[in-house]
Amino acid sequence: MIMIGERVNAGFKDIKNAIVNKDGDVIKKWARKQADAKASYIDVNLGTASNKPEDLCWMIEMVQEEVDTPISIDNNRPNMLTEAMKVCKKPPLVNSTTAVEEKMNELFPIVAEHGASIIGLVMDESGSPATADKRVENAAKIIEKAMEFGLSTDQIFLDPIIMPLKFMQEQAKEILSAANQFQLFSDPPCHIVCGLTNISSGAKHKGLINRVFLTMLIANGCDTAIMNVLDDELVNAILTAELVMNRQIYADSYIEAFRKK
Amino acid sequence: MIMIGERVNAGFKDIKNAIVNKDGDVIKKWARKQADAKASYIDVNLGTASNKPEDLCWMIEMVQEEVDTPISIDNNRPNMLTEAMKVCKKPPLVNSTTAVEEKMNELFPIVAEHGASIIGLVMDESGSPATADKRVENAAKIIEKAMEFGLSTDQIFLDPIIMPLKFMQEQAKEILSAANQFQLFSDPPCHIVCGLTNISSGAKHKGLINRVFLTMLIANGCDTAIMNVLDDELVNAILTAELVMNRQIYADSYIEAFRKK
Repeated sequence: MIMIGERVNAGFKDIKNAIVNKDGDVIKKWARKQADAKASYIDVNLGTASNKPEDLCWMIEMVQEEVDTPISIDNNRPNMLTEAMKVCKKPPLVNSTTAVEEKMNELFPIVAEHGASIIGLVMDESGSPATADKRVENAAKIIEKAMEFGLSTDQIFLDPIIMPLKFMQEQAKEILSAANQFQLFSDPPCHIVCGLTNISSGAKHKGLINRVFLTMLIANGCDTAIMNVLDDELVNAILTAELVMNRQIYADSYIEAFRKK
Repeated sequence: MIMIGERVNAGFKDIKNAIVNKDGDVIKKWARKQADAKASYIDVNLGTASNKPEDLCWMIEMVQEEVDTPISIDNNRPNMLTEAMKVCKKPPLVNSTTAVEEKMNELFPIVAEHGASIIGLVMDESGSPATADKRVENAAKIIEKAMEFGLSTDQIFLDPIIMPLKFMQEQAKEILSAANQFQLFSDPPCHIVCGLTNISSGAKHKGLINRVFLTMLIANGCDTAIMNVLDDELVNAILTAELVMNRQIYADSYIEAFRKK
């Protein structure tokens, strides 16, 4: 499983303050914690704290001073991305494009030039998709355009767009069905990613809902999540689901082996 | 979810002793516990404690003296079933037939006569299936034969045959794929059932494996499990998975509401 650590995000107050005050230690602390928890990428998000490329670059540099985990650049503005790419020591994951042609034409050349990867949200000009079919239709647009720019399936992370179970319950099944169909576009398939915490937005039993939904999504081909990598119960569920999918080899102490430094 | 309580089974020592000593209180205690946990059926299994119809009937009567939950008769011998059926106050679930023609010809008439239901293990003369395709082939035989005897899809519970993750890891994905295909035989589909605890046989993290695997199986259409209905974490996962599948309506306190007597 490709686990993307969500915590270096200015949506969290301590990160927002760290950006405003240029307090690198806070960024480094969260980078370290998530890397120790075996995050595959550290997502870096400026939120509303700033819109300056130098602030985004500073965040990335702080993470990279502490850990060598690749960066997920959570920004879709070409000027920001272009600068951020220059400071990334490893090929980053861009989070994200939509299926809107203009946006893809802006972002894919930058991604291709740097050998980076990109998350494709399966929404277009008409907004968020309401059905599995619409998600698949938008995914096809993203894949087609990515191929034009010479990206390989391994560089594309399709995001079926997770919606809150509490407010849009009927969407959950559509999302599972869409992910399942995403697998059929190519062999090997593109990655399938989700912004997990959306599913439990506003809900009471957040941890349980995150865990169960991601497990069901893995059963439908998901191999990547933007998530709280420090949630041990969630990670245990992922490790187990990966055994079921035969992606990792069973050992009695698979949980303990993963937790070992 | 149709939850079948597995605990009144002579594989457990206290039940075996209860049968030998005709100690009805032990049977009643487990019947009560499982009914309070909202079991849909109480499975009743003589194991090696006895092969006398009167002992099976006694177990069923003990359960029925305590609770009004329907019985799952865990026996596939026609002479045993015929007697057991007579004492069941509600239409029971027979556990189980295979896809072996002779066995189906013996059992389906008994099931049909009593308006009962039956679990169909998708194995045949050649033994346990190694692939999803073989499971689907055997499921087709079971459905076809059941139709001949006038059974409806609602009376058929297809069991994809769960094998231990520890010893036959590559089977888990085949099982999920088989269950997914079982849904396509008819509309409405047959029930899909699993003997859950097989998946974690010999494993260290049994509870976790049971929970994650059943969640993934529900994502593939499973609606019934023979299980430890007293495992709260397992039941919480089921309740959540049913919300994701849109089978129950979301409420913030869906866990608490279920637990209320």
